[in-house]
Amino acid sequence: MTQWSVEQATEQLQRALARLHVPFDPTEFRWEGLVARAYKEHAGDAPGMGWRGVLRFDLGRPPIIPAQFALRYFEIEPEGYSSLEKHTHIHLVVAVRGRGKALVGTSVFDLQPMDVVYVPPDVPHRWLNPYAEPFGFLCVVDAERDRPRPVSPEEWESLRTHPETAPWVF
Amino acid sequence: MTQWSVEQATEQLQRALARLHVPFDPTEFRWEGLVARAYKEHAGDAPGMGWRGVLRFDLGRPPIIPAQFALRYFEIEPEGYSSLEKHTHIHLVVAVRGRGKALVGTSVFDLQPMDVVYVPPDVPHRWLNPYAEPFGFLCVVDAERDRPRPVSPEEWESLRTHPETAPWVF
Repeated sequence: MTQWSVEQATEQLQRALARLHVPFDPTEFRWEGLVARAYKEHAGDAPGMGWRGVLRFDLGRPPIIPAQFALRYFEIEPEGYSSLEKHTHIHLVVAVRGRGKALVGTSVFDLQPMDVVYVPPDVPHRWLNPYAEPFGFLCVVDAERDRPRPVSPEEWESLRTHPETAPWVF
Repeated sequence: MTQWSVEQATEQLQRALARLHVPFDPTEFRWEGLVARAYKEHAGDAPGMGWRGVLRFDLGRPPIIPAQFALRYFEIEPEGYSSLEKHTHIHLVVAVRGRGKALVGTSVFDLQPMDVVYVPPDVPHRWLNPYAEPFGFLCVVDAERDRPRPVSPEEWESLRTHPETAPWVF
């Protein structure tokens, strides 16, 4: 999984959006001229903050576009997962590639393309791909937002013992 | 094309997002519990402000979610088109169903699923479906945004005479 620096990805995105139309290649499931950047530069060592096999593509965000939101595409390889985290800003997600799972609070949802997931403020969540094909989703967030935090020891314990979430809490 | 009032669509969206997961039915290309609302209540009679066969689904917006953006899904039936308009807020669009065309400034792009289109501030634009199947796209906007305006007489004349845009300016 080739990943580029934020600066390189930003420059590529700027060029792509300057052309107004960013064509998509369905064979590669990639956008012309857009490159993946590191999912997280440093996630921290707190329980649940580990992650594996996650690519991030920015599709639009300030200051490249004058907007109050950012649109990103995340892709999780088979056996991959994002960090188990929470934050005050919300996520609005649309699955677009393959299948995957969303842990949101004490629920775990199985996702198919075009399913929508809403992650409310301060609700612990994690995206997982226990399937054989890449799992990809669009995620819209406020451009100005707080940093992700680990779940609290009480939340960790509660998620680790809840039958629905337990298999995905590590 | 059944369309619901803003109030009815809002209530349905609120219920759907309260369940956190909004499953999608690929056969109908619709989300469970979400209903279409009128694309525009009154578009005005200025040149280009006509439209035809456009459905709008809100997937998330304040005050239902605490965010500074709104995510919508628009679907244009064969031979349909949105109004030719401009505004200061930007659009970030991801095509997701069928094929369609985007007029943005003096360019016309042919869109396939997952193509991204950026509409910069105050650039005239229109979405069209000259194809046989429904054309659908996701569109992210700032929640607080200015109202669409007709293009100016000078822009109208320029778009009407530009070889690329002329067929789509009416």
